[in-house]
Amino acid sequence: MSVETRIKERAVKIEQALDRLIPQEPLPQGEIVEAMRYSLLGGGKYLRPVLLLEWNAICGGRAEETLPFACALEMIHTYSLVHDDLPSMDNDDLRRGRPSCHKAFGEGLAVLTGDALLNRAFEVMLNEQSGLAAETRLRAAGYMARMAGVYGMIGGQTIDISACKAPRNEAELMHMVRLKTGALIKAACACGALLASCDEQTLKLAEEYAELVGLAFQIKDDLLDQGTESRYTFVDAYGAEGCERAVWELTDQAAALCDKLPGSVFLRDLTLWMAGRDH
Amino acid sequence: MSVETRIKERAVKIEQALDRLIPQEPLPQGEIVEAMRYSLLGGGKYLRPVLLLEWNAICGGRAEETLPFACALEMIHTYSLVHDDLPSMDNDDLRRGRPSCHKAFGEGLAVLTGDALLNRAFEVMLNEQSGLAAETRLRAAGYMARMAGVYGMIGGQTIDISACKAPRNEAELMHMVRLKTGALIKAACACGALLASCDEQTLKLAEEYAELVGLAFQIKDDLLDQGTESRYTFVDAYGAEGCERAVWELTDQAAALCDKLPGSVFLRDLTLWMAGRDH
Repeated sequence: MSVETRIKERAVKIEQALDRLIPQEPLPQGEIVEAMRYSLLGGGKYLRPVLLLEWNAICGGRAEETLPFACALEMIHTYSLVHDDLPSMDNDDLRRGRPSCHKAFGEGLAVLTGDALLNRAFEVMLNEQSGLAAETRLRAAGYMARMAGVYGMIGGQTIDISACKAPRNEAELMHMVRLKTGALIKAACACGALLASCDEQTLKLAEEYAELVGLAFQIKDDLLDQGTESRYTFVDAYGAEGCERAVWELTDQAAALCDKLPGSVFLRDLTLWMAGRDH
Repeated sequence: MSVETRIKERAVKIEQALDRLIPQEPLPQGEIVEAMRYSLLGGGKYLRPVLLLEWNAICGGRAEETLPFACALEMIHTYSLVHDDLPSMDNDDLRRGRPSCHKAFGEGLAVLTGDALLNRAFEVMLNEQSGLAAETRLRAAGYMARMAGVYGMIGGQTIDISACKAPRNEAELMHMVRLKTGALIKAACACGALLASCDEQTLKLAEEYAELVGLAFQIKDDLLDQGTESRYTFVDAYGAEGCERAVWELTDQAAALCDKLPGSVFLRDLTLWMAGRDH
């Protein structure tokens, strides 16, 4: 079975779970539920939740217990896109080939939709029944919160939109990307491992893997978006060929880490697929 | 000692804790930390965290263990104000007599500041060390999340800004206010009780008290804002005198509930003070 087919198989399960976690109901606030579902379902690759579930499986976790956390991570990722697309931020009219949330539902409701998705992520992590111990859930949800917040992703977004702090050289770009893109990928791998009650050494391995893959992911993104970005990107820092080389170097290192883990065949394939993707 | 002095005493402790939980640090994303502190510190009455701490004290909890949750609640309240003030929402230039967050820091950063405060609330509830059992923290944080989200406060905000669902009669207004204002007040009282490992009967009492006080609080607010609101409010539904009467009826009922609880002298005084406040 091709890697894409295996990713798709997992994505279908994640999408079914997301559909259950934000059900369509006849509520006076029904419009925001519709906007949450519009932004969340259909079109995403679900790479972050796939990574979370895979790290969890490798560490001996059970998918049915972990699924709410994988869904929560996708909600956090999606809320960040909804707010990023706002006119006061990136001002993007399109997202995944469809009108962005504020184009489809209006700007005020898009602000609330992002808020609702972020909040719903925590509702799901904290309230969904699961066989996991309270300590385990608390630690994983706390890790997720740290990675998503002002010392993680939001910190990176802040630097990105700042007039005077936006990256102008490789070191600054690297720091911004570690937060803006890297933090949620780190949350994916580390929380997957934590939810399987991994040991500290495996947690470190998950974090190390995530650092490499997160960076490779962003460099690849910059390559794919070449010419459409007005900010300073890795293409400015390394050139297109340098980017291509960096992606594969980082990916090789990440794949070598996979080789230390029993049962990591799919993770390895996924890692290589991410480096070679064309969208 | 007057009620106001006793509220002030508690507010000082809460503000000191908030100051510690969002420290000024030399970070590349320092501007958002400044915006978070600007919005959070100085000027608020901190009624929600005061209510949380008082319900906790009445139920036998310890303030030092509960303080992070009280602060988290204030962060959630503040984020909702920052986003409510945005041009695409209420478009308010002033908050507590100072420029609102987006006026002081720009609209893009104000979106992120609200996001960061909401996220930081969960970071604090989940990551701050405390002597409380993991189950207790998980249940209280989960309750808070539910009250803050799409089935609580955000649901109410959605109805409030909706062109076709905005309240046009008493029943619709009551429902909207239960969510928009009531949910966080319910979170205050119920989480205070839950963090002291209260029994189910006391939890019910806290929720019942919060329903009454939340409604009285909003009716009082509508009275104080008379003439400045363009939407349908309780003044439209009941008239000014009817509002005054309703506030005191609800407050009397809430005070009667206090009388069932040993050690509730301050809570009773606070309840009456809220009904009589002039701002």
